[in-house]
Amino acid sequence: MFEFVIDATSGAARVGSLNLPHGVVETPVFMPVGTQGTVRALSPNDLRSAGATLVLANTYHLHVRPGEEVVAKLGGLHRFMGWDRPLLTDSGGFQVFSLEGFRRVDEGGVEFQSHVDGSRRTLTPERAAEIQWVLGADIAMAFDHVVPEGADEATARDAMDRTLRWLERCVRRHAELADGQTGGQADGTAVTDRRSASPPDRQTLWPILQGGTHLELREEGLRRICDMRPWTGLAIGGLSVGEPKALMYDMLERLEPRLPTLPRYLMGVGFPEDLVAAVERGVDLFDCVAPTRNGRNGSAFTPDGPVNMRNAEHRDDPRPLDATCDCETCTTFSRGYLRHLFMAEELLGLRLLSLHNVRYLIRLAGEMRAAIRRNAFGPWAGEWRRRYLHSGSA
Amino acid sequence: MFEFVIDATSGAARVGSLNLPHGVVETPVFMPVGTQGTVRALSPNDLRSAGATLVLANTYHLHVRPGEEVVAKLGGLHRFMGWDRPLLTDSGGFQVFSLEGFRRVDEGGVEFQSHVDGSRRTLTPERAAEIQWVLGADIAMAFDHVVPEGADEATARDAMDRTLRWLERCVRRHAELADGQTGGQADGTAVTDRRSASPPDRQTLWPILQGGTHLELREEGLRRICDMRPWTGLAIGGLSVGEPKALMYDMLERLEPRLPTLPRYLMGVGFPEDLVAAVERGVDLFDCVAPTRNGRNGSAFTPDGPVNMRNAEHRDDPRPLDATCDCETCTTFSRGYLRHLFMAEELLGLRLLSLHNVRYLIRLAGEMRAAIRRNAFGPWAGEWRRRYLHSGSA
Repeated sequence: MFEFVIDATSGAARVGSLNLPHGVVETPVFMPVGTQGTVRALSPNDLRSAGATLVLANTYHLHVRPGEEVVAKLGGLHRFMGWDRPLLTDSGGFQVFSLEGFRRVDEGGVEFQSHVDGSRRTLTPERAAEIQWVLGADIAMAFDHVVPEGADEATARDAMDRTLRWLERCVRRHAELADGQTGGQADGTAVTDRRSASPPDRQTLWPILQGGTHLELREEGLRRICDMRPWTGLAIGGLSVGEPKALMYDMLERLEPRLPTLPRYLMGVGFPEDLVAAVERGVDLFDCVAPTRNGRNGSAFTPDGPVNMRNAEHRDDPRPLDATCDCETCTTFSRGYLRHLFMAEELLGLRLLSLHNVRYLIRLAGEMRAAIRRNAFGPWAGEWRRRYLHSGSA
Repeated sequence: MFEFVIDATSGAARVGSLNLPHGVVETPVFMPVGTQGTVRALSPNDLRSAGATLVLANTYHLHVRPGEEVVAKLGGLHRFMGWDRPLLTDSGGFQVFSLEGFRRVDEGGVEFQSHVDGSRRTLTPERAAEIQWVLGADIAMAFDHVVPEGADEATARDAMDRTLRWLERCVRRHAELADGQTGGQADGTAVTDRRSASPPDRQTLWPILQGGTHLELREEGLRRICDMRPWTGLAIGGLSVGEPKALMYDMLERLEPRLPTLPRYLMGVGFPEDLVAAVERGVDLFDCVAPTRNGRNGSAFTPDGPVNMRNAEHRDDPRPLDATCDCETCTTFSRGYLRHLFMAEELLGLRLLSLHNVRYLIRLAGEMRAAIRRNAFGPWAGEWRRRYLHSGSA
């Protein structure tokens, strides 16, 4: 379990297969984001039809609503959301550091205000591990201290050091839970109930590398993470938060030779061009709300670049949104009908574009795997970019 | 084509089959409402999985957006909305008389203001027939003058007389279109283009009986409609517009012996209890936005009466919404998850409850057909009401 096998490489790009309790995930892989236990506007059947193999949910959101104890009573996160394939939960670190309003950080953890009811809550490394254990995703993430884009080196170092200390506490708590030691949760509810029926290897924990845009911090953090213990995967956090794209690409390129062969997860990425650039630099896993959020805004990914379905040019266009795509949206409806749904503010439009955009990124990952297996990733990427980035399309 | 065969009766209740260009419809039947060319929050696949055989769309809405000429360019209403089974279009009469804002009625037709862009538009009996012909539904409705609930007899008579004069004009224009005479549309675009590829029996036109809550007017209107020509179906309009339910039931009961054996369509109904009461009084077809609108509001039909999914009692309830139901919602998700979707304002909740409510009414129609075939509609209805209306459930 949690074994990662690299099947093929092309330059730094790799095809791998990651063995998880709820199934095998082929990488590179794009994870749709189900923030509140649902990928917005899509059903589990939609996700299966789009070819999703791994879905992300957010610990922070599920903790504040409905609460992990409710999810547990309803059979755990997989059963709760009707998704029987692999799941990954983010730790809540990114969310509590992104919240507007009150937030207090100390060595213990983060006190913050719920965006739902304004109540004061605390997340610590231990609580983040406990909540994720109760939710029961295949992959849990360590609780991290995220700094804003452009943070200076002292701030970034302080947060990275804290993230590493928190990582040790996450690992300890996660191991206790996996070993069957209860320890008890902060709110006094028993954790054992939910665990007893599960195999001891039901969940793995991945560390998150921070360090802002400071390469030497990233390198130091990576060394210290790798020295701490063996891992089953590694996430790169704190990128794609507003810095110039070239900076992110450069950072990935310089980190790549130092990264262990473990599965590498670039958090919060991305847009199609970012996926291609990051796979080229050795990244294996991605998540992003872009396909669903942009879809709800009427923006669709196509091989010729993004298309705004609200544009008047689509008014009576009988062609499919993307003639190369096999999704329900593209095989059933015309561009004219999709435009009508957006102009008329019909809910079906939100869903049809979300579905297509998710399918688009999943097909893109599949195309990349094929190009890597042919050991032709570079030429494929050049061809892909020529069409996607330089087409005259809207 | 357009043949209606009654297969079984039980009291005034009947099972029939209605042969339409896009398929056979078994009655009693509930039509989901696709106002703007989409049943809100549901896809054609959802509708098929819910067992829908006949769907309604609105001439007024499609005329003002995207315009019937756009629908025609995109292949007609069936192809536009991806629905290959039978369709019925309402004439726009009910909508223009329900609009807030400017409206002027004279013998020619109705001048009104578009709710989309405020532009002044005119609907006449001829235009309503032309637009519906271009849309291409299996069943078109005559353009009618609808009076508000509680209208006095003089007002209701005036509107009924006008509706009958308009009916003659609708019939004439519809026959011209079906016979291949162009006549030309008000906006000068040719109608022939869209018709040439279609069989001459591609669409039938049904009259709408008005007369408010005045029985003698309804009886007179019915006589005059039946004397006008042979029909393939008959609609009863102007009920379920706010009058007491007992009054509607009484009106149906007193009209029933005078109705021809034609398919009888009670417009804008309804709620489960109204469907049962109206089938008991010989009605065959129904449409209503209740299942989708109530579903979006978090209210679900169940055999034990309506359930508000937002109620705290569902918080950690692992049971399905309706254990007797075979829809995706009830076979996949718990009440607790459905409540979470509504509390978290997730789009998936709107869709899952809309899907269940539509499936509920379609299953209800199926149960009624089975009870009629057993010649046991009365006892079945009594049993159904005991459970639906008198259960203690929320």
